Amino acid sequence: MATHLPTASIITIGDELLIGQTIDTNSAFIAQELNRIGIWVRRRVAVGDQAEEIRNALDQEAMKSDLILITGGLGPTADDMTKPLLCDYFGGKLVRDESVLKHIEYLFQEVYRRPGALLERNKRQADVPDVCEVLPNAIGTAPGMLFRKEGKIFISLPGVPAEMKKLVAEQVLPLLSKEWITASIQHKTLITAGAGESVLAEALAQFEQKLPPSIKLAYLPKYGMVKLRLTYVGESDLVGLDLLNRLFPELEALVQEWLIASEDVGLEILIGEWMKKNNKTLGTAESCTGGSIAQVLTSIPGSSQYFIGSVVSYANRIKVDLLNVQQETLLTVGAVSEQAVKEMIQGGLQILRTDFMVSVSGILGPGGATPEKPVGTVWIAAGTKEKTITRKLNLQFDRTRNTVITTHQSLLLLWELLRTNEG
Amino acid sequence: MATHLPTASIITIGDELLIGQTIDTNSAFIAQELNRIGIWVRRRVAVGDQAEEIRNALDQEAMKSDLILITGGLGPTADDMTKPLLCDYFGGKLVRDESVLKHIEYLFQEVYRRPGALLERNKRQADVPDVCEVLPNAIGTAPGMLFRKEGKIFISLPGVPAEMKKLVAEQVLPLLSKEWITASIQHKTLITAGAGESVLAEALAQFEQKLPPSIKLAYLPKYGMVKLRLTYVGESDLVGLDLLNRLFPELEALVQEWLIASEDVGLEILIGEWMKKNNKTLGTAESCTGGSIAQVLTSIPGSSQYFIGSVVSYANRIKVDLLNVQQETLLTVGAVSEQAVKEMIQGGLQILRTDFMVSVSGILGPGGATPEKPVGTVWIAAGTKEKTITRKLNLQFDRTRNTVITTHQSLLLLWELLRTNEG
Repeated sequence: MATHLPTASIITIGDELLIGQTIDTNSAFIAQELNRIGIWVRRRVAVGDQAEEIRNALDQEAMKSDLILITGGLGPTADDMTKPLLCDYFGGKLVRDESVLKHIEYLFQEVYRRPGALLERNKRQADVPDVCEVLPNAIGTAPGMLFRKEGKIFISLPGVPAEMKKLVAEQVLPLLSKEWITASIQHKTLITAGAGESVLAEALAQFEQKLPPSIKLAYLPKYGMVKLRLTYVGESDLVGLDLLNRLFPELEALVQEWLIASEDVGLEILIGEWMKKNNKTLGTAESCTGGSIAQVLTSIPGSSQYFIGSVVSYANRIKVDLLNVQQETLLTVGAVSEQAVKEMIQGGLQILRTDFMVSVSGILGPGGATPEKPVGTVWIAAGTKEKTITRKLNLQFDRTRNTVITTHQSLLLLWELLRTNEG
Repeated sequence: MATHLPTASIITIGDELLIGQTIDTNSAFIAQELNRIGIWVRRRVAVGDQAEEIRNALDQEAMKSDLILITGGLGPTADDMTKPLLCDYFGGKLVRDESVLKHIEYLFQEVYRRPGALLERNKRQADVPDVCEVLPNAIGTAPGMLFRKEGKIFISLPGVPAEMKKLVAEQVLPLLSKEWITASIQHKTLITAGAGESVLAEALAQFEQKLPPSIKLAYLPKYGMVKLRLTYVGESDLVGLDLLNRLFPELEALVQEWLIASEDVGLEILIGEWMKKNNKTLGTAESCTGGSIAQVLTSIPGSSQYFIGSVVSYANRIKVDLLNVQQETLLTVGAVSEQAVKEMIQGGLQILRTDFMVSVSGILGPGGATPEKPVGTVWIAAGTKEKTITRKLNLQFDRTRNTVITTHQSLLLLWELLRTNEG
């Protein structure tokens, strides 16, 4: 790591993070955004709602990082004690900011439309230390605050994700870009399927050895696939671009056999782009995934252009009534079988009148196993009227993870079908 | 906070956490489990794959915590450098552990069923520092490791969630329980809907003031609801139980008007228990949520006892063809209307033959708005043949958050219907 990079620490405040009641998604977003402008996040720290721990974290992170970003602890309720502490830490006193107060009144009047609900404790959100620069929060009541101390920058942001994101994008990033001539951090990522980490590492051993020190290769297993990421950290955008443009195609060639996509993009996006380009439509017929595949496919804005709908046939009678699965199939090979998912494809195509269909039937656990079909036995299929491809999965995790992997393996199977359809 | 509690720090290792490519869910699980046996997690720290930062974090956390739990950095690929570092840090040398090696061979032979794929780099996962106690990993190749140094305990665990969880539950917790006479940490949580944090805080101002120092009240807003959590941290299980048993009913009474559930349990679980108890069946008819409600309802093991299936009618023609929504409704008031979700309830009940149905139709954004129906306009309904209740939501977030809130508000509406059905 080049030492000239501005470095950052992210501090998240809240007992809920330490007792495991909340999963921290804010830090990942902040890290991505800081990275984009060449600030290297060296540490993330979560502490509870305790003055001593917060103070301690501020001291510690300021020792090595140029920027300290703090989220959480700014709500209107009594369990929040961050603001008085910041005031004390940076040596100011709390004063009511009139423009923030006006904004809070506006929100209650015009946006929430309940001006009568505006309480003194809401107004107190307009109180800020007089030594900070106020960062107005367009969509919430708690403003961001910027402090400077001994050459370091401290920024405190509300923990509500939508408010934090808007503040980061519209105020924090432009401000920091002006503050530092930042270095260059660039990533290029591809997605593979069908080979484990070890097999890939073997195939890439020589490639890794000759990488220059400014380039790192990382293996990121996910959903039964493995992402490979090349990262450049250095002084020059141009040098980084040049290195990545040269090395990335080499990497692609070495993993050609398992290559799914040459960018870090969800399969649901690749599938959506393909459907739009080829003017085709899509639906799903799901049993054990309970709508999860449809949910992922429709998470993309504009998916209504190609996604028609789904039949979630959790009960066998729905498989028969709506998807035309044969009673005989259920009685002989059962609902978790290649024959059943094939029939679900054809039944789904008929009732939803789409060009493509994905289907799935399996046992995700913990119950439902039989001697021949243990938990984790799942059949998936992707098909058209003319052609259906199937795959059997043997999953070994808990229900939640089995569902996620099944969902993504189903999209992977569809993507394989679409790619052969193109050729 | 009582000072006699054993305290812990969780250190997660991996660049992917610092550039925001991965969201850390492991820490929340570990924190919950440690809490359960009376160990207070005082800090969580994430650092990158850099020796100096890892070493620095170990030093820092060991200064104030009794237990340091480390996850990640144990995979078979070259970007992992944790093990040699631990070896150096604790002053040992790497030796191959024969029983771990046997287990790895067993996994490749019997579980993965590809013995030929066993490479030297997989075997190297059996190499452990000779100063550690090995914690066998039943379902993966990288074992856990326990070190002791200057009265502190350090435990290194693999980052794969399923493996980490099994190791924590079956080995780490029993081991730590023996090590320390741990203090008592107890939580009781209830769920409210219909009042914001400020309104609740106002209603609870007096209650909060008279809480003893060993009890804390926290406000946790989620999905348009607010959870309220009472936490006891102290020396005695009995005192804690007694305090919570006395204070929790007071809290319940004070928020009676907005009380949804007196435990921290998902609405999907409450609904599932109700369906089983009353021997009723359930389905969903979803437009904009794309299967998300069905997915949440079927995330519960055993949901096949009452959940029959869904029609995801993303395209309007599916609303007409399968859910019997009237063309006239679509032409006059449109698909995003009270009339449409009411018709979807009746159509869904008919085609899926269930006792209860949830339906939803709306505009989650970013596209799809009209002058009369801005982004965030969503109609939800819950009903039986005899009675349907509806609600209009005006959401103000991005597509993902709008989907999650709509899903949970739909479950909330169903829960309201079920509770009136009981009376």
